[in-house]
Amino acid sequence: MLRMSTLFLRTLREDPADAEVPSHKLMVRGGYVRRAAPGVYSWMPLGKIVLDNVAAVIREEMNRIGGQEMLLPTLLPSDYYEATGRWTEYGDALFRLKDRKGGDYALTPTHEELFTSLVKGEYSSYKDFPVILYQVQEKFRDEARPRAGVLRGREFHMKDSYSFDLDDEGLQHSYDLHRQAYVRIFGRLGLRFAVVSAQSGAMGGSLSEEFLAETPTGEDTFVRSTGSDYAANVEAVDTPAPPAASVEGRPQAQVHHTPDTPTIETLVGFFNAAGLGRTFTAADTLKNVLVKTRRPGDDDWEIVGVGVPGDREVDMKRLEAALHPADVALLDEADFEANPFLVKGYVGPNGLLANKLRYLVDPRVAPGTAWVTGADKPDHHVMDLVCGRDFVPDGTVEAADVREGDASPDGQGTLYTARGIEIGHIFQLGRKYTDAFELDALGADGKPKRVTMGSYGIGVSRVLAAVVEQSHDGKGIVWPREIAPADVHVVGTGKGDQIETALRIAEELEQRGVRVLVDDRKGVSPGVKFTDAELLGVPTGLIVGKGLSEGVLELRDRASGESEEIALDAAVDRVASAVAAG
Amino acid sequence: MLRMSTLFLRTLREDPADAEVPSHKLMVRGGYVRRAAPGVYSWMPLGKIVLDNVAAVIREEMNRIGGQEMLLPTLLPSDYYEATGRWTEYGDALFRLKDRKGGDYALTPTHEELFTSLVKGEYSSYKDFPVILYQVQEKFRDEARPRAGVLRGREFHMKDSYSFDLDDEGLQHSYDLHRQAYVRIFGRLGLRFAVVSAQSGAMGGSLSEEFLAETPTGEDTFVRSTGSDYAANVEAVDTPAPPAASVEGRPQAQVHHTPDTPTIETLVGFFNAAGLGRTFTAADTLKNVLVKTRRPGDDDWEIVGVGVPGDREVDMKRLEAALHPADVALLDEADFEANPFLVKGYVGPNGLLANKLRYLVDPRVAPGTAWVTGADKPDHHVMDLVCGRDFVPDGTVEAADVREGDASPDGQGTLYTARGIEIGHIFQLGRKYTDAFELDALGADGKPKRVTMGSYGIGVSRVLAAVVEQSHDGKGIVWPREIAPADVHVVGTGKGDQIETALRIAEELEQRGVRVLVDDRKGVSPGVKFTDAELLGVPTGLIVGKGLSEGVLELRDRASGESEEIALDAAVDRVASAVAAG
Repeated sequence: MLRMSTLFLRTLREDPADAEVPSHKLMVRGGYVRRAAPGVYSWMPLGKIVLDNVAAVIREEMNRIGGQEMLLPTLLPSDYYEATGRWTEYGDALFRLKDRKGGDYALTPTHEELFTSLVKGEYSSYKDFPVILYQVQEKFRDEARPRAGVLRGREFHMKDSYSFDLDDEGLQHSYDLHRQAYVRIFGRLGLRFAVVSAQSGAMGGSLSEEFLAETPTGEDTFVRSTGSDYAANVEAVDTPAPPAASVEGRPQAQVHHTPDTPTIETLVGFFNAAGLGRTFTAADTLKNVLVKTRRPGDDDWEIVGVGVPGDREVDMKRLEAALHPADVALLDEADFEANPFLVKGYVGPNGLLANKLRYLVDPRVAPGTAWVTGADKPDHHVMDLVCGRDFVPDGTVEAADVREGDASPDGQGTLYTARGIEIGHIFQLGRKYTDAFELDALGADGKPKRVTMGSYGIGVSRVLAAVVEQSHDGKGIVWPREIAPADVHVVGTGKGDQIETALRIAEELEQRGVRVLVDDRKGVSPGVKFTDAELLGVPTGLIVGKGLSEGVLELRDRASGESEEIALDAAVDRVASAVAAG
Repeated sequence: MLRMSTLFLRTLREDPADAEVPSHKLMVRGGYVRRAAPGVYSWMPLGKIVLDNVAAVIREEMNRIGGQEMLLPTLLPSDYYEATGRWTEYGDALFRLKDRKGGDYALTPTHEELFTSLVKGEYSSYKDFPVILYQVQEKFRDEARPRAGVLRGREFHMKDSYSFDLDDEGLQHSYDLHRQAYVRIFGRLGLRFAVVSAQSGAMGGSLSEEFLAETPTGEDTFVRSTGSDYAANVEAVDTPAPPAASVEGRPQAQVHHTPDTPTIETLVGFFNAAGLGRTFTAADTLKNVLVKTRRPGDDDWEIVGVGVPGDREVDMKRLEAALHPADVALLDEADFEANPFLVKGYVGPNGLLANKLRYLVDPRVAPGTAWVTGADKPDHHVMDLVCGRDFVPDGTVEAADVREGDASPDGQGTLYTARGIEIGHIFQLGRKYTDAFELDALGADGKPKRVTMGSYGIGVSRVLAAVVEQSHDGKGIVWPREIAPADVHVVGTGKGDQIETALRIAEELEQRGVRVLVDDRKGVSPGVKFTDAELLGVPTGLIVGKGLSEGVLELRDRASGESEEIALDAAVDRVASAVAAG
């Protein structure tokens, strides 16, 4: 039984100054967490309980799919990460330190390397596989901008699991098991979520999906289709390319003197006013954006041209995802000075290609399409420059922004934008890590077979915040019962025997297996107690107040706000059935 | 139910090369832990279970004394530790790192600072106190010599708790509650342990006790009395000082030319052969050992003379503990060269004192005692040099070694030596930390009152190893039931329906609430299965083997090694009652 009279908890009436999103405000105001450093939080007694409750749901569902729980260290020598290149790839996001002997260590952001190494140490035969291993543990990531309380922390709690299978079908099965487990977990936690196709980021895999809890405050933008279940991270949206068209009989490219056309709009206006007998739109122009990229471990930057239709912007996040793990930056003045053939505002495909720069284009710039674009000299543009005839790009890249109304990549409906919080991520890693550690299983045929791997994460602390984002009102948190810090908040108010009665009822409820928080504080007004109860968000409230002398208590439902008077004698039964009803 | 056929576990027949103590050997061979780096271990599935079981016992007893569980971060900015000077005091033992912005961070070894800061943030009135807060969490310490598996790790699991009280009586009460809880915890874990007086080390407190699990492999030597319950860390043994004697009528000090007396033995021989009419022993000589010390944060070393009776050695660990938190080192040649008055082999009290060096003596060097000691010039010693008359030391220091047969400090019996593993430590810290953070409670009289504090630790992972040290045999671990990975190890052997029957019985046992590990591996010989069962150490074994055709199973007790045949029909009941019997 939790007693407010002794609980290490002080609620706050004011929102913390640094809080912008509801979960951050309410978890701090409700005394669930306290900030220790940027992105680093202490879990107070009630916070620890809800965190444990989330972890318990996750453990049950992980065990149900045959996951075996372990606990790996958070401090690991660099060797593990160097074996896979992630020591470099992680960049500034990895917390690094040296031990007293000068050895390099990392605070673990994820554990692919050590799990792979452990499996290699224990298992050797095809009969040993498959296996799913997991842990629930602190993770570390040196975020550039820790924010939103525990939503984006630098020390946070994760469930990470890893599957090891003999073949692709096995991996698909382990992946599907996790997907089902995640759907059950987030369902039990009462979350509204979408499963979206995702980039795999530093994980190095190919197929992956993100679980996003939909909330207007979400950091991740994703798109859904009006016509199907399609949902994807903006970074993962594939642009449908038009079919390649023939270049036969297309007009020749013509260079025009185009003074005073600094913008796409003025350029389109110029051509429409030029009496060419055709109408141009921004979508007929080809905008060439220059960036520089640098691969992990490389010293030198490489300049790359990115061509997108003029009605689109380059979405740097999409471009970065597409070029990952390379760094991407815009050119600075020094870069233009060093490459005088780059005529600012008039860069065209041929200037880039003639100077051996890599040139990547949006999939809409398909063979046979004709464009108005820069002619590589001041005040000149070229029209009818045909892809595949007048220039041949080095490849395509998903860099153009995705817009509401764009065709859905699955051909059904159009896209619209939603926002969400990433609460889970599942990856088919394949053999990146098992190759690095040479994890083989001896097959039935006596030959070694490279094992294939999946990795699967749930941000435990972030899930909790996502629940609060989705489940709160103006008065406070509204916990789903499964993870609430208690089933019932028994509030004793008044100066008579209300508090003693509240404690007695709390005792009886506990004996019935109901988890109780009881407000047994003396000298605290009913108003303050009710305000605290609403802020804390326990699903069921039982008020032992002034009606006690007539044998009447009040039963409250936090979510609906409804309340009813009930008889003292029936209180324990009524609360127990409200709890059992969920 | 744990099934050996799928459990991520491979036992080893050979001891690991780096293992010296039984717990290390057996926890690795039994697949409970795997080494990830020096002093850094992964907890495998069975290891995670026993670790959780130990933590569960600790939590129950901490909750029983009103402790409230929290979870604090392991990554903390240096500010917290700078506020109390521990950022410097910890020296190399603290893992330090910088974040991407260059901020200094520590991996937390203990959390006095943050807990004090949290209590200050939430509490302000005398009505709020007392409070006991705790957590179970990874801790970090950059040990110079990590060893013995999880016994002395660099990343390890601890329960740390902190009490905050208004006055000394309150602190004593919180301390006593913890002491009782610890006695219950270690009792439930089946440990043989002693509670010993201890130095407080870097904690900065005054009164503290250590809980030592007695084992011959223990790192800590402690002493017990033959005549009482007295037990203490060697570092904490106070030497009984003789009563101060009068110097009246004592012979004058006389300097003697003492050639060829390089050792105490030759010196004593010289004086006994000198016809002085007295008999000398080594205990009549005063040996002056030179060390240098440096306080935390200081740049310069200070030379200190330490005088102990010639029949004793200086115990550097006792000296270091006595001078803590200062560093202590022996002099090198350069020090002697810089201080030519230090005549090696002939250093006497007056040479030190005349040159303003600090001179500390063993408590046996009491006022009125007379000594043979160096005369500060080559080949000369002085006799009848009387403490308090001919020299006045700057103080006493507990530096002399403690020996079997020394008088017990409590005056009852003599001391003998035992070895143990530190499994718990309780401290009355007082106000060191609350002073640093100015943690006050507003008293009933409206005046602020400085809060007083205790801190209390249990090494969770170390406790587990200590249990194995005390509870194993030549075949493997013998777990106490309370923390065993399972209650019963059901072993199916043979090629008939033994494995199916084993699984069916396992299922029935689980339904009865019995925790089951079942060996359902096919193609593994009975011998291997029995060897594994003994190594893993589950308290009760149930063998479903060749007797099955006659309806007979075998019930084994791991601790006693006894076994008996039981009827198949009675098996579930028999196992359940064996488990219930503990």
